[in-house]
Amino acid sequence: MEKIRIGIAGYGNIARGVETAIKTSPDTELVAVFTRRKPEDLMINSPGVKVVNFSQVEEYKDTVDVMILCTGSAKDLPVHGVEFAKLFNTVDSYDNHAQIPQYLRRVNESALSSGKVSIISIGWDPGLFSIMRMISEAVLPEGSSYTFWGRGVSQGHSDAIRRVKGVKYGIQYTIPLEKAVEAVRRGETPNLSARDKHMRECYVVCEEGADKSKIESDIKNMPDYFAPYDTKVNFISEEEFKENHSKMPHGGLVIRNGTTGEEKQNKHIMEFSLKLDSNPEFTGSVLLAYARAAYKMNLEGMMGAKTIFDVPLFYLSPRYREDLVKELL
Amino acid sequence: MEKIRIGIAGYGNIARGVETAIKTSPDTELVAVFTRRKPEDLMINSPGVKVVNFSQVEEYKDTVDVMILCTGSAKDLPVHGVEFAKLFNTVDSYDNHAQIPQYLRRVNESALSSGKVSIISIGWDPGLFSIMRMISEAVLPEGSSYTFWGRGVSQGHSDAIRRVKGVKYGIQYTIPLEKAVEAVRRGETPNLSARDKHMRECYVVCEEGADKSKIESDIKNMPDYFAPYDTKVNFISEEEFKENHSKMPHGGLVIRNGTTGEEKQNKHIMEFSLKLDSNPEFTGSVLLAYARAAYKMNLEGMMGAKTIFDVPLFYLSPRYREDLVKELL
Repeated sequence: MEKIRIGIAGYGNIARGVETAIKTSPDTELVAVFTRRKPEDLMINSPGVKVVNFSQVEEYKDTVDVMILCTGSAKDLPVHGVEFAKLFNTVDSYDNHAQIPQYLRRVNESALSSGKVSIISIGWDPGLFSIMRMISEAVLPEGSSYTFWGRGVSQGHSDAIRRVKGVKYGIQYTIPLEKAVEAVRRGETPNLSARDKHMRECYVVCEEGADKSKIESDIKNMPDYFAPYDTKVNFISEEEFKENHSKMPHGGLVIRNGTTGEEKQNKHIMEFSLKLDSNPEFTGSVLLAYARAAYKMNLEGMMGAKTIFDVPLFYLSPRYREDLVKELL
Repeated sequence: MEKIRIGIAGYGNIARGVETAIKTSPDTELVAVFTRRKPEDLMINSPGVKVVNFSQVEEYKDTVDVMILCTGSAKDLPVHGVEFAKLFNTVDSYDNHAQIPQYLRRVNESALSSGKVSIISIGWDPGLFSIMRMISEAVLPEGSSYTFWGRGVSQGHSDAIRRVKGVKYGIQYTIPLEKAVEAVRRGETPNLSARDKHMRECYVVCEEGADKSKIESDIKNMPDYFAPYDTKVNFISEEEFKENHSKMPHGGLVIRNGTTGEEKQNKHIMEFSLKLDSNPEFTGSVLLAYARAAYKMNLEGMMGAKTIFDVPLFYLSPRYREDLVKELL
């Protein structure tokens, strides 16, 4: 079997998740990791695989089938997504919701120019949760959809804590409120504010001599990030932080409560939930499945930027269509 | 807006579910219900909509965009699926698992000959549950998948009870065993036999003077249907039967427990569940969403028989791709 040759651009947590996923997917192989740093400064977990500087990426045009972009959504992907699509099939986890339409348009231009496929905004949200929101609304047009996140680490909120003066280490857990989840699970369709759905729990290690009450109030009053929520700030020791807060679990659920029938008398509850020990490894696994799809779609002559809504699902699997029909349908 | 013109073939429970769903989907309209009976003998729930005998179906070739086939899987669809695809885009809920590959091949020949699209085996299982089994296996290749059904009415098992001598009315509920569900939900990956996963609960109204203990033993020992399960038979009065057992609730769940990481040290649990007050109305709603997809795919030049794995998801929604990207991705 010819393997799908994968390149990884960037080498943060998600990139390492992709790297791990490749090892359990025998139809894929890692060709190289691409970095903005000096290649000799980067140690990767795949012995024998090359580390290459971004400046040489064009040389891999014909040896990388799909480039999985693992650089940041905020500043990196708006550049990398557009540039890499001029050379490769790409997949990324761009998650800056407000900017997605514009990003899709710009990547589409690049991918059409190269005749490649770029699948954007892949992961679990945006990603698998988007699939559920879409299918459940299409199937039950009369109804309400709810997305809850957590319990899990929010990278963005953790970064925000660490920017507060006097904070040495910090991490933030998003926690869905049991009361709201249970009401929705019972089939109710409440109107829920941000505060009704989630609370935010922070664990902070202070710098020596820092003013704890000021740190607490700086965090709790931070607009957008914390002010609209009930926030709890816990001060802990550096030892406890390293012992108990070095993992990246996450998860969440999408629920749609809908009705059918002449008098809307029949209720239906659709729920999709994830409980993840490692957010980056799971996200990396989703990216790899969609890398497979990008490769196959391009082989069949498709091109341009795609979202998760554009991808027929059987492209995700390494198995033959006939076997999927026989065993999973 | 031009509406998608729907025809319904057959008029059982699922057909009435489709009929109801059309009323809450403003981009669709019901053109006619087609029947093998005398049209004048059939009362439908859509005032002003025509009832037409199967013999005249060809006259509707240009006025029905998608025919939703609601006749039985056992004997009807193997004929109707193949014949209607020669004239119309079609959607059906063919659920005879062992025969699906052959059915797909035969419908494909018809649909290619007419240049139409036929989407087969649509509903929730096969259907939405198939989507989940497929995605979760592709994302987490290391892991185990479980499907549980119920608590809900199984039509096939209820029919089987009613064929037992001395039974006047009968209904069967498939019940997933809490112990098995809870183990899988905790992330365990047990090997489960049929008996470990589900029990079967029957409610029976006897004919006068019937031998209850013989009925009970006939049911419990019926091969395939009941012998491989723990089965409970409850004898009740006709009044109680009509009062408490005239609805068709159902549901179930698909769970995949998988691992990632160099030493498979990280666990991930993906769960999709349905709780349905009315199995036929929910199934009808899924069929209608895929009818929309069949219509749009054919408009774009696709043809042939498709499964749920072949359909890009954005075809399911009446909304614009741009809005879906903005609001649901």
